[in-house]
Amino acid sequence: MNLRATVLSGFFATSLLLAGCAQDSAPEAPRDVPAARTAPPEAANNNNAFEPLELSTEYHQIRVSRIAGGLEHPWAVAFLPDGGFLVTERPGRLNRISADGMRTRIGGVPDVAVAGQGGLLDVVLHPDYADNGWIYMTYSSGDDGETTTKVARARIDGDQLVDLEELFSQDRLSQPGRHYGSRIVWRADGTMLVSIGDRGAEPPRAQDPADHAGTVLRLNADGSVPDDNPFIGRDDVLPEVFSYGHRNIQGMVVDPATDKVWATEHGPRGGDELNLVVAGNNYGWPSAGLGRDYRTEEQYGDARSLPGKIDPVYEFLPTLAPSGLALLTTDTFPRWQGNLLAGGLRAERIRRLVIENDIVVHDEELITGKVGRIRDVREGPDGAIYVLTDHEDGGLYRIDRVN
Amino acid sequence: MNLRATVLSGFFATSLLLAGCAQDSAPEAPRDVPAARTAPPEAANNNNAFEPLELSTEYHQIRVSRIAGGLEHPWAVAFLPDGGFLVTERPGRLNRISADGMRTRIGGVPDVAVAGQGGLLDVVLHPDYADNGWIYMTYSSGDDGETTTKVARARIDGDQLVDLEELFSQDRLSQPGRHYGSRIVWRADGTMLVSIGDRGAEPPRAQDPADHAGTVLRLNADGSVPDDNPFIGRDDVLPEVFSYGHRNIQGMVVDPATDKVWATEHGPRGGDELNLVVAGNNYGWPSAGLGRDYRTEEQYGDARSLPGKIDPVYEFLPTLAPSGLALLTTDTFPRWQGNLLAGGLRAERIRRLVIENDIVVHDEELITGKVGRIRDVREGPDGAIYVLTDHEDGGLYRIDRVN
Repeated sequence: MNLRATVLSGFFATSLLLAGCAQDSAPEAPRDVPAARTAPPEAANNNNAFEPLELSTEYHQIRVSRIAGGLEHPWAVAFLPDGGFLVTERPGRLNRISADGMRTRIGGVPDVAVAGQGGLLDVVLHPDYADNGWIYMTYSSGDDGETTTKVARARIDGDQLVDLEELFSQDRLSQPGRHYGSRIVWRADGTMLVSIGDRGAEPPRAQDPADHAGTVLRLNADGSVPDDNPFIGRDDVLPEVFSYGHRNIQGMVVDPATDKVWATEHGPRGGDELNLVVAGNNYGWPSAGLGRDYRTEEQYGDARSLPGKIDPVYEFLPTLAPSGLALLTTDTFPRWQGNLLAGGLRAERIRRLVIENDIVVHDEELITGKVGRIRDVREGPDGAIYVLTDHEDGGLYRIDRVN
Repeated sequence: MNLRATVLSGFFATSLLLAGCAQDSAPEAPRDVPAARTAPPEAANNNNAFEPLELSTEYHQIRVSRIAGGLEHPWAVAFLPDGGFLVTERPGRLNRISADGMRTRIGGVPDVAVAGQGGLLDVVLHPDYADNGWIYMTYSSGDDGETTTKVARARIDGDQLVDLEELFSQDRLSQPGRHYGSRIVWRADGTMLVSIGDRGAEPPRAQDPADHAGTVLRLNADGSVPDDNPFIGRDDVLPEVFSYGHRNIQGMVVDPATDKVWATEHGPRGGDELNLVVAGNNYGWPSAGLGRDYRTEEQYGDARSLPGKIDPVYEFLPTLAPSGLALLTTDTFPRWQGNLLAGGLRAERIRRLVIENDIVVHDEELITGKVGRIRDVREGPDGAIYVLTDHEDGGLYRIDRVN
C-alpha cells in the first residue's frame, strides 16, 4: 500500500523521460514546452480535414463529426460543466478543449513513464466537481526499467494543475509498457473503483490478491481504504482489492440506475470479455478464460470455466481489443437507451450491446473502420456520444443522431 | 409431395419470364441467347480489374485473387474434376468456368422464376459424378404471383444440360421473392439434404412439418423418399422432412469425418444462427430464437429458448446475414483445419469458427469489406477456399495461403 500524498514535479521531468522512450518516435509536437498561463488556445483540428459522416445503423441514422484532431494517442475524455472537455494524451499531456475545438494545455501534470501502453491515462471529474474542483488521473510512473500504476488528483487553476496529490501507487513494480488497466469510475456511495492490469509479464500475479496486478480497487475519494471493502481483515489480500483475476480492464462504467459495474477486459486472442464486476469475486485470469494462445490457437489457461471463478457475461467475438466503455442513460438515441457501447482498438469499431437481465441479447457494430482505433467512448452530459481515437494524429469525435 | 421427373423446357421460357421481373433491371447481358455448342469460351474477368490482395489474419497470411468477374449475382460454385467450376447465376444461367477463368454458358437449364432472392440457386455434383455425371440444382419456379422451390438433376453434354429431371417441388406455392433456402449437401449414406426456407410471408409455417416451408429435407439421389426418414409413418408430417423450424438456411456442409451436418441460418436482426442439424429436431423458428424485431428491437417470437426446440450452437453477432458455409478438411491452411467458414452477405466477410466439442470456441472475421457481399464459400478439392460475391458484377475468388 502506498497512500502518500505527494506533490510531484511537473512537466519538465516528463519531457526528459520521454526523450529516451520508443514512443517518442512520433513527429515532434510542442509537448516539451510547458503551456504558459497566458498562451492563447489553439485550434486542435487543423491537421487533417475530417468531413462529417452520415451513417446508417440498425435503428438510427447517425452523424460522426470531429471536434478536435492533432491529439497524440489521446486516452480519456472528461466533460467540463462549461461544455468543454479534458483530454489526456498518453505521452503526458492534459488538454482542455472547448466545445468548438480550441485547445489549451494544462501544466503541472504528474511525471509519467511513457513506454508502450504506459503514460498519462484516465481522467475523470469527481462527482461533486462543481463544488470541490477535483479531477482524478491515472498514469504509469517509474523509469525505463520498472513502472507502477498510480492514481492522483488535482484541481485546475487557470491553465495549471494545483493541489496535486498522489492517492495510490501499485505495490509492485513491473517491466514498463504493458497492461496498466487504469479506468476510474465512481459509485453511488462516493467510492471510486480503479482497474489495475496484470502488467503483462507474469499473468499468474492476477490470481494473487496480495498483489495489485490484475485487480479492481475500491478507494475513498482521498485515496484511503473504505473500511467495508470486501477483503478487509484478510491478511492474504490487500485491503483496497475489490475484485481480482482480471487481465486488463480498459473500459468500465457504473449504471447510475442500479449501481452495477460493467467492465470490458482485454483477453488473449478471442478472450475479450464483458464482466459484471462484483465485490469479492475472482474473474479467473489466467486460469480460466475464453481466449486462445496467440501462437498455437490452443485453449489459453486451464479451462474456459472453473468453479469459484466468475465467467464473463459476454465474449467479444470476433476480437475487439476493448478500450473505453459507455452506458447510454438518456433518450438522445431512443432505441439505444440503456445500451452499452464498447470501443475497440484493433477492431476499429464500437460494439453496441443490448442487455436484458444481465445477458447480452444483441450486439451491433458501429462506425467500423471509419475513424480508426477507438480508445475511449463516453456518453456526454448532452446525451451525445464522444469518441477518442488511438493514433499519433488522434481525434475527439462526437456522434449525434440524425433520425 | 411432388416427385415427378419432368424434362423442362429450356432457356427460352426463362428469358420470357425474366422480362417481367424487377431483377431484370440489370444491364443487358447476353443471357437470353442460348449458348451455341460451338461458342468459344469468353474471358469472364474482363469487366473490372481486381488486383490480388495479401492480407494478414490471426494465424496465416493469405492472398485473395479473382478467377472470374462479370458474374451476375452468382449463387453457387461446384468443382469439376478437370479443375474447372460450375457457377450458377441467380437470373437463370449456369456457367462452366475453366481454371484460368474462361467461361462457357451451359444451355438447357430449367425455367426459373427470377424475383428477389429467387432464381437459379445451388449447384452440386453427385458424389459419384465421375461415374454418373449427375449435377443437382435448386431453383425457384412459378410466375409473378406464386413460386415454389424445386430440385432437379441433369447431365452435361458439351455445353448443354441433358437428361434433366425435376426431383422435388415444394408442396405449397408462396409469394415470390423471399427465403428459398436451397442448399444441397450429401451425406455418407448417399442421401441428400436440401434446405427449404420459410418463404417469408407466414413464418409460423416453419412450425408445421406438414408444410415444406422452413424444413431440411432428406431425399434419395433420384428424388424418392428414404424409407428410414425420421417422420415416416406420421400422417401430420411430410415424409421427406428431416428437421423443421428453420427460417432460411443458405449455408450447409457435412463433416466427412463425422457425418455431422452444420448449417447457417438467417435470423431476423441478430438472430443469425449456426445449427447442428439432426434428424427429427424442431429448431424453433419463429417461436424461439435470438433475433430482435426489425422495427422495435424487442425480442422476436415468444422466447430465446423453449423446451423441445433446439437452441443454436452459436449466434452470429454482430449480424452476418449468413450465406455459404465451408468446412476446411485439408491442411492447406494448417491452423484452420477443421474450422468452419461462414460467408456473410450484409457483413461482407467470412467468419472463421473454431469448433471444439460442438462449441464455437473462437471466431475470426476474414476479408471484411474486401470483396463485397459473400454469397458462397467452399473448400476446393485443392484445399484452397473459393468465394462468390453477390453483386451485379459479382466474381469467383480464390483464397490461398502465403504463409
